[in-house]
Amino acid sequence: MIETGFPTGGPTLRELGEREVINRIRAQAPSTVNGDDAAVLAPAAPNSRVVAATDMSVEGIHFSADTTTPYCVGRKVALQNFADIEAMGARPIAALMAVSAHPDTAVRVMEDIARGAGDMAAQYACELVGGDVTSGERLVVSVSAIGTLGGNRPPLTLGAARPGHRVIAHGQFGYSAAGLALLQAGVKIPEELEPLVAAHQVPQLTPGSGVVARAAGACAMTDNSDGLIRDISQIADASDVGIELASNALAPDALLVQAGSLLGVDPWEWVLGGGEDHTLVGTIEGSAPVGFRSIGTVSKKPGVRIDGSASSTDAGWESF
Amino acid sequence: MIETGFPTGGPTLRELGEREVINRIRAQAPSTVNGDDAAVLAPAAPNSRVVAATDMSVEGIHFSADTTTPYCVGRKVALQNFADIEAMGARPIAALMAVSAHPDTAVRVMEDIARGAGDMAAQYACELVGGDVTSGERLVVSVSAIGTLGGNRPPLTLGAARPGHRVIAHGQFGYSAAGLALLQAGVKIPEELEPLVAAHQVPQLTPGSGVVARAAGACAMTDNSDGLIRDISQIADASDVGIELASNALAPDALLVQAGSLLGVDPWEWVLGGGEDHTLVGTIEGSAPVGFRSIGTVSKKPGVRIDGSASSTDAGWESF
Repeated sequence: MIETGFPTGGPTLRELGEREVINRIRAQAPSTVNGDDAAVLAPAAPNSRVVAATDMSVEGIHFSADTTTPYCVGRKVALQNFADIEAMGARPIAALMAVSAHPDTAVRVMEDIARGAGDMAAQYACELVGGDVTSGERLVVSVSAIGTLGGNRPPLTLGAARPGHRVIAHGQFGYSAAGLALLQAGVKIPEELEPLVAAHQVPQLTPGSGVVARAAGACAMTDNSDGLIRDISQIADASDVGIELASNALAPDALLVQAGSLLGVDPWEWVLGGGEDHTLVGTIEGSAPVGFRSIGTVSKKPGVRIDGSASSTDAGWESF
Repeated sequence: MIETGFPTGGPTLRELGEREVINRIRAQAPSTVNGDDAAVLAPAAPNSRVVAATDMSVEGIHFSADTTTPYCVGRKVALQNFADIEAMGARPIAALMAVSAHPDTAVRVMEDIARGAGDMAAQYACELVGGDVTSGERLVVSVSAIGTLGGNRPPLTLGAARPGHRVIAHGQFGYSAAGLALLQAGVKIPEELEPLVAAHQVPQLTPGSGVVARAAGACAMTDNSDGLIRDISQIADASDVGIELASNALAPDALLVQAGSLLGVDPWEWVLGGGEDHTLVGTIEGSAPVGFRSIGTVSKKPGVRIDGSASSTDAGWESF
């Protein structure tokens, strides 16, 4: 069942005041290290490095009450950060969340966002260790994630792809964009297409995917946030290589095809330009690690091509 | 000279697009580890722990073009985070910044915020290692800071004050609130009061103050963000102790007295309830460390008193 909408009943942030709002948030996402000026994490493993990323989501831009719930917003912003950490081959260990909301917002909204972020953190075996709440006009949720990178092997960077590497991918491309299109079309969404909506509301990435890829010898990696072609072009540009994608490895599946017919959209647009799937795409010298599949190869000739032809879409997310 | 206002000329965020905006930001706050999905920091020192904090500032709530500049906004949000790290006795090592702005915002605004945050980071011998930019209605700046806590000694926590401790403070109380009052009063601000305005626009905290205090044996500590009485009450409550402040150690100085006369305000209100000075206040068993002064003692009787009388103000910052 698809759920959307923001709760409006019950006490507001203004009625409860800052301290009580913070108490409510901490009740939803408990952490033993939260509650002081800053969170002190457990001692790091020897030789490990700290990895850090941040992502901000704004109501009306990244999400709205028409297409999601506060719980999903919390889960998604946390996941977006964890995907950035995994894309370095690192393991998330903690998250911080700052939220700005109108004082007349129901505290339930704040609680649900916190519960969502806390639940996603728990899924990654880490905690929401600190945060900030402030008033504002629109809802703005900013999460930062801290991760740890063990051992001496380099992190998975945009610039580490080399000609001859295999291009590997984890998870689905285009699901999130298709799900959003369905939600925005105002059509009755067939039950079998609900996985697309779910992927938009809360993208899925198996915890440890990036860590496993690094251990298996992956070199370059990023997460699919702005659209596959755009994201993979970042690897091609930073590595000064070309990427040859195989259309048969990327072809829209039955769900995407069905959603495309329903909305009169070519599902390839979602696959190549959709973004927000937060699945991982990277390169490796050998075969694809567990959970990853091969979608192409790295070549010397600059650019991104599909079956040898320059990609026709460079659509994708553009902030401004 | 007091500067306020946000630049409006030149190209806008919309005109330049996301990639170029990010390039401009990175030019203002360069870092060798920025530019990938997440930043990988240098290996941590053995036995060190990671410390993390986040703080969000919203246009119209925390700052406005009438009272500050984008450069000062960037400096201040970074400093607020560093003060939280120092308040644990830790040393900041990196900062992340996420900014939401209307697409019609001049890129100069974004550049100035980034330069401010980067300059403050440099003052703390650390870097802005990553970030996020998104569109939005109002300007929202969210910074997270990562610090490192060396050695086995515990961090400086709210709950570590013990009866018999000396209460210590670093820096001025009330300057920020007085400076804001001057800016908002619309009066001509006498040149000699400009330090108050400067303290509001960019609070000052000597880098390493918290680290020095911890090394000298301090136990509890927080930064003055919501108002002295409110912040010190947090220590009293979390430690289950009382705080006895000495009025002669807190008395408004000549600048605060002059500003009070000019605006018809009792300067004690700024000292006790002002907040946003981001100076440090804590407790220690022995004498005050270098840079700190004694402002009172810790007792067994719950509550915060000045010269033995219950503090008359619990005014202070309230988010909602």
